[in-house]
Amino acid sequence: MTIRPAPETPAHLLARLREAPPLVQCLTNSVVTNFTANVLLALGASGAMVDIPGEAGAFAGIASGVLVNLGTPTAEQRTAMVEAATAAGAAGTPWVLDPVAIGSLPVRTALAAQLVQLRPTVIRGNPSEIIALAGLGAGGRGVDSTATGEEAVDAARTLSQRFGSVVAVSGAVDIIVHGDRIARLANGHPLLTVVTGGGCALGAVMAAFLGAAGAGGAPRAGTDAFAATCAAVTTYTVAAEIAAEHASGPGTFAVAFLDALASVGSAELDARARTTKA
Amino acid sequence: MTIRPAPETPAHLLARLREAPPLVQCLTNSVVTNFTANVLLALGASGAMVDIPGEAGAFAGIASGVLVNLGTPTAEQRTAMVEAATAAGAAGTPWVLDPVAIGSLPVRTALAAQLVQLRPTVIRGNPSEIIALAGLGAGGRGVDSTATGEEAVDAARTLSQRFGSVVAVSGAVDIIVHGDRIARLANGHPLLTVVTGGGCALGAVMAAFLGAAGAGGAPRAGTDAFAATCAAVTTYTVAAEIAAEHASGPGTFAVAFLDALASVGSAELDARARTTKA
Amino acid sequence: MTIRPAPETPAHLLARLREAPPLVQCLTNSVVTNFTANVLLALGASGAMVDIPGEAGAFAGIASGVLVNLGTPTAEQRTAMVEAATAAGAAGTPWVLDPVAIGSLPVRTALAAQLVQLRPTVIRGNPSEIIALAGLGAGGRGVDSTATGEEAVDAARTLSQRFGSVVAVSGAVDIIVHGDRIARLANGHPLLTVVTGGGCALGAVMAAFLGAAGAGGAPRAGTDAFAATCAAVTTYTVAAEIAAEHASGPGTFAVAFLDALASVGSAELDARARTTKA
Repeated sequence: MTIRPAPETPAHLLARLREAPPLVQCLTNSVVTNFTANVLLALGASGAMVDIPGEAGAFAGIASGVLVNLGTPTAEQRTAMVEAATAAGAAGTPWVLDPVAIGSLPVRTALAAQLVQLRPTVIRGNPSEIIALAGLGAGGRGVDSTATGEEAVDAARTLSQRFGSVVAVSGAVDIIVHGDRIARLANGHPLLTVVTGGGCALGAVMAAFLGAAGAGGAPRAGTDAFAATCAAVTTYTVAAEIAAEHASGPGTFAVAFLDALASVGSAELDARARTTKA
Repeated sequence: MTIRPAPETPAHLLARLREAPPLVQCLTNSVVTNFTANVLLALGASGAMVDIPGEAGAFAGIASGVLVNLGTPTAEQRTAMVEAATAAGAAGTPWVLDPVAIGSLPVRTALAAQLVQLRPTVIRGNPSEIIALAGLGAGGRGVDSTATGEEAVDAARTLSQRFGSVVAVSGAVDIIVHGDRIARLANGHPLLTVVTGGGCALGAVMAAFLGAAGAGGAPRAGTDAFAATCAAVTTYTVAAEIAAEHASGPGTFAVAFLDALASVGSAELDARARTTKA
Repeated sequence: MTIRPAPETPAHLLARLREAPPLVQCLTNSVVTNFTANVLLALGASGAMVDIPGEAGAFAGIASGVLVNLGTPTAEQRTAMVEAATAAGAAGTPWVLDPVAIGSLPVRTALAAQLVQLRPTVIRGNPSEIIALAGLGAGGRGVDSTATGEEAVDAARTLSQRFGSVVAVSGAVDIIVHGDRIARLANGHPLLTVVTGGGCALGAVMAAFLGAAGAGGAPRAGTDAFAATCAAVTTYTVAAEIAAEHASGPGTFAVAFLDALASVGSAELDARARTTKA
């Protein structure tokens, strides 16, 4: 009989993150670099946008976690992304793939197909992106999704089984799948969708929690990566709820969100989390 | 006798935009990507920064509108801009050219000369840029203008007649020219010039209103593109006035401006608009 | 006997900057372009991100000052940086080198070694970066420093003597070295380290003060560049202190910081400055 460790709670993992701040390497799109770096700093982590060939791989070996987001993939970034993902895999650094807007756009779709073979620790996307990546559909329109989260569960399971990844499907209810495990997280606020990078920065937060949880290494601890991903989503979406209470629109919300990420504590996570797991 | 439809009011066009949110493809400079995307989301539209060769053209065919802003034109962006503008023209997608800082800077000046031949739906710039594009002068210094709006009216008329474009000249009074029509819009606030991207994001808002108004298509409806451009400027500058009432400096202004774009309604546009047309 | 002009005070130099706003050319990283431009505008200066080959050199000849920041150095930027630094030197335009995260990352480290030979007016970095640039150590981890400011003083002196540059070492106490002169500036607030670009934008502010002080030209006036650098740091860090009084976290701090840069006046600089010089 094998005794599995009790799943780590979001509150526990957030505390661990703040005790030993992870450094997250971000190869991400030009729209959200600033917001992403500020989200990481507010949370208690830090970011480094090392995304040029010749440096991206070396840095992936020493970073705590890596985010690869395909939002605006220039030629140099595409080379650097493969370099970083390969090095992360070799070094046991956990990494997150966010296949932004794949499906109908050919350059990033081909790149995502290549990167997913490198077995991301986490794959994060909206339902259309997850379905497109699993080869089950044709993608959405831009960064908005035209499928629902529940419609993407089968695709998420397929990806998880094929590549060993935790798969996070974004939506009003976030769905996290790993093998035969599934969690539904119902926190959040609609204002988060009216701030650009609301989803993209969450990918970096996942990488931060993975790094803090020590979710890398071979073989990767399934329980840890699943719990770390759930903790990232819970922390992020609970902070959004707190921020919304202080906002009068998308501008004040984005500002309050950074303040909330910096101040949110264990008690609030425990009190507010609305998670169901199976 | 031909009965022309009554010009669409800003209030009418803003309501139409929010009913069917347009998706604006932005090929824009690295300084303002984030602000531009947030402006579009606050307004009720959405943005997608698809600006790499091999994707930009395909996306221009399905986007509601396209912005081509020459602020930081990398080699890849330059290729993608020509690709997108060509595809937009072929598909009837309305597009906006913002020839940032042309005149003395050779790479972007040559690019602007090439792009304008593709007949933008709207050309937006400060007086020096409009004069430079019309070949009547030598451009300004950086992104600031050294000519006045009224000094650029002849250049705007020249450009409009030559390329069929609506031409929008920015300033304390915005001047919109289309053929023999002209409008002067006197809304706005000086704080808008102390936030970077205050002008650049307006180009994206114009593309959003053009898309929402169905201003694309061949032959392009002159009335629609002119009215949509005026509506974009009015909405944007009235929101700036509202924001200034809640600001104590450029930082709080930028935040309040996003809130104001999200909340500004038809009644406020009607009550505040200070427009004279000829 | 030579009578040296009395050192310019921060209050004096800030007033001069606002009377004749300098235009700062920024070749900087993708994370902080927006924040940097907003900082410059709030201060009363303006920025232009002219960073492509074929334009960067021409613009460096007419800009008031130039910032070269190695945070995300793409291939095009690297070419443009050498072009701009060379042209700045030839034209007598003061320029600032910020060797972000050099040491272990090979591409930027080689670039920094090349650029420093072009004799920057100011070199700005954290202690690890300054030590790495002086060839005395192996650099830090990402953009965070693992050495203390006092540990970097010898390296700063070495760089200053070798290249004639003012060297500014960032930290809770900022240390400014020029030849055998040294100043320690103890203003600032920890929240400035929780906003991305807090250090990077200071490099642009230094370029603005150098340009406003007329610190360029050959031979460069040592007193002016040293005083201008001290004035930049004092203005920036005093604004941070004012902002912190209105902040409830990193989000509200960043907003209040821009407001404070716009409103800070001579009296506050004089009253709050905590500077010791030798």
